[in-house]
Amino acid sequence: MGEVASKAALAKRAAGALGRLTTGQKNEALLVMADALRREAAAIIEANAEDLERGRQGGTPQSMLDRLSLDTDRIDAIAEGLQQIAVLPDPVGDTLETLERPNGLIIEKIRVPLGVIGIIYEARPNVTVDAAGLCLKTGNAVVLRGGSAALSSNRKIVEVLHAALAGTNIPPEALQLIEDPNRSSVDELLKLNGLLDVIIPRGGSSLIQNVVKNATVPVIETGAGICHTYLDASAVAEMAESISLNAKAQRPSVCNSMETLLVHRSFAAEHLTALGEAFRSAKVELRGCSRTRTLIPWALPVTEENFATEYNDYILNIKVVDGIDEALEHIARYGTKHSECIVTEDEESAERFQDEVDAAAVYHNASTRFTDGFEFGYGAEIGISTQKLHARGPMGLPALTSTKYKIYGNGQIRS
Amino acid sequence: MGEVASKAALAKRAAGALGRLTTGQKNEALLVMADALRREAAAIIEANAEDLERGRQGGTPQSMLDRLSLDTDRIDAIAEGLQQIAVLPDPVGDTLETLERPNGLIIEKIRVPLGVIGIIYEARPNVTVDAAGLCLKTGNAVVLRGGSAALSSNRKIVEVLHAALAGTNIPPEALQLIEDPNRSSVDELLKLNGLLDVIIPRGGSSLIQNVVKNATVPVIETGAGICHTYLDASAVAEMAESISLNAKAQRPSVCNSMETLLVHRSFAAEHLTALGEAFRSAKVELRGCSRTRTLIPWALPVTEENFATEYNDYILNIKVVDGIDEALEHIARYGTKHSECIVTEDEESAERFQDEVDAAAVYHNASTRFTDGFEFGYGAEIGISTQKLHARGPMGLPALTSTKYKIYGNGQIRS
Repeated sequence: MGEVASKAALAKRAAGALGRLTTGQKNEALLVMADALRREAAAIIEANAEDLERGRQGGTPQSMLDRLSLDTDRIDAIAEGLQQIAVLPDPVGDTLETLERPNGLIIEKIRVPLGVIGIIYEARPNVTVDAAGLCLKTGNAVVLRGGSAALSSNRKIVEVLHAALAGTNIPPEALQLIEDPNRSSVDELLKLNGLLDVIIPRGGSSLIQNVVKNATVPVIETGAGICHTYLDASAVAEMAESISLNAKAQRPSVCNSMETLLVHRSFAAEHLTALGEAFRSAKVELRGCSRTRTLIPWALPVTEENFATEYNDYILNIKVVDGIDEALEHIARYGTKHSECIVTEDEESAERFQDEVDAAAVYHNASTRFTDGFEFGYGAEIGISTQKLHARGPMGLPALTSTKYKIYGNGQIRS
Repeated sequence: MGEVASKAALAKRAAGALGRLTTGQKNEALLVMADALRREAAAIIEANAEDLERGRQGGTPQSMLDRLSLDTDRIDAIAEGLQQIAVLPDPVGDTLETLERPNGLIIEKIRVPLGVIGIIYEARPNVTVDAAGLCLKTGNAVVLRGGSAALSSNRKIVEVLHAALAGTNIPPEALQLIEDPNRSSVDELLKLNGLLDVIIPRGGSSLIQNVVKNATVPVIETGAGICHTYLDASAVAEMAESISLNAKAQRPSVCNSMETLLVHRSFAAEHLTALGEAFRSAKVELRGCSRTRTLIPWALPVTEENFATEYNDYILNIKVVDGIDEALEHIARYGTKHSECIVTEDEESAERFQDEVDAAAVYHNASTRFTDGFEFGYGAEIGISTQKLHARGPMGLPALTSTKYKIYGNGQIRS
């Protein structure tokens, strides 16, 4: 058995006992892990330096090096994340339903861990700790496959966590890191039915699409966000500007930021030029339809392909529409079912938009940037599901659980 | 665009409007569908006769012909099924959570339809109606791909239902039947990401495994059941016999029936010979381990392969075990996470068994045959999920829904 299957088998063997630990035992282990990371920060930074050096020699862009880089502050923040997970309520063991049947059977529906979770991600070493913490808190064993660019960092982090877990009730085998940097190790992981219960990809759209297209293990699809904001005829100009600027420019690199602004023609006639100026001040490059370009002459022409692109950057498409119908059609065509917003004072339009848009989160008069586990008050976030099965939108701890029916009888048989 | 993609696209287009119909509109359509089936029973039976004739000429086994065959009583029962679905509560629109955030955002989590559901099944024409009814009740469009052996029946049934829907608020395009009898039409359906939101296979294990292995659309895996009953040392002999006979022989062809009986050695020493007699009277062929065969000399020797087989027949494996540990190990190795049972008077053993067995339904002192949507009181059943994602165990109407967050603001932006 190669590395991938043998590590997944170890994780599976550890999962049973892990799933039956008390909340206290799991929380204690999370705190021990946090302490160990802080204590071993120097060694982790040293391992990270190897990754950075390799990256620089290989010509990795600076933005990727930034995401890869660790220092004492970042390690402290990562450890802090584990402490925050420790104080969250533990969903495992919750009774979701109790049915008493006419034949006397008592049926309880109980939350249980999923089992073994595979996480496939890129070169952010913080995900290694974050995913481990979230999975362990919910009683799940975890098999991590991080990007090869972060291999030295991940290996050292997992070594530190394994040593820490050895003194706790969590079996260290419950946390596995796949070290094989070849893509074949990802391919193998994707087909480990019977060992993995679910795979969650975290990263860019090509990583996610590879997982979705090739996995035979069930997947929770996360991430890709082509989000729209529609400024309706009755939108208040100030609010429209503040919401659309925030949705685009507060942090363009994330999935809940806006890529396309749809503007009702009457609102556009009055306010679009000023709005264009505001985006120019915020250093946002604009691409517009022909009606947009008469009002914002410095906008480049927008293409079909632009509408289908998740920029994650200071670039925005603008389209003037005749009304809510055209906005809804555009969103149905180009949206990724992530987060969509209408700015309007018209309650009927707002209701129609929220009912008809097919997306995880549909906003009336608020920025799409709020689609986030912390902003929703979940205290943690595994990712934002853009599929409709199992979990949709920001995923908190319950998204990492399944259920089991326990049935209590006294000899009942079926007739 | 071929038949598969174009019909799925029609279904998708119909899904939006369908998802916003009222419960009353959907129920009315279900009743109209039921009436139409009864009214057109003769035409349906005529189409069914073509399938039966083709089957007989092709040498289809009698048991399959039985499942394929329709008569007035069966059509009446199928129509009755639609009427029962009409009276069930509609989960769509339910508010599952309301969060009020410190910044004033109100976040509502609402049940919505999944969208477009693909159902892949074998030659049971009743599934055509049943699946259509369940999907439409939950506001989902449905693309059906039934076994080619039932094609004439399915075509006629869908023709009747389309004509019936034309007089209702449900767009007839919401119900699509793939008529291409080639396997390539299944393969195409499995990869229709963007048009289908989920695929549910219903049928034998080879059909299900084909779907699980090849689909890129999310799947809800159903069905396969290698279920065990463990008779503990303290089991009451009468209850042990009645539960294990029921689990095996009341209806062996279904997934929740028992395939292997595990017997504590002390219980075996006292009761296994009598139990063997009882199974012999019930015409159950026995296959046993060596300890079993000293107590039931007429049992054939059992093999590893037998333990891994879902017989769905009057055949039973019996294994004598040294205690609950060995029983748990056996179940972990051969079980399909469907339904498992312990018969015991020892509460501690019962609790341990229910905690440690990883299955959708774990019984104490009741037959595994109860794993069923109707027996659980759900009033309907789409299937029994054996995966851990989205739904586990008997699936009622809520299993055919997703959720959406509606967020109400008054200008909130993220800082």
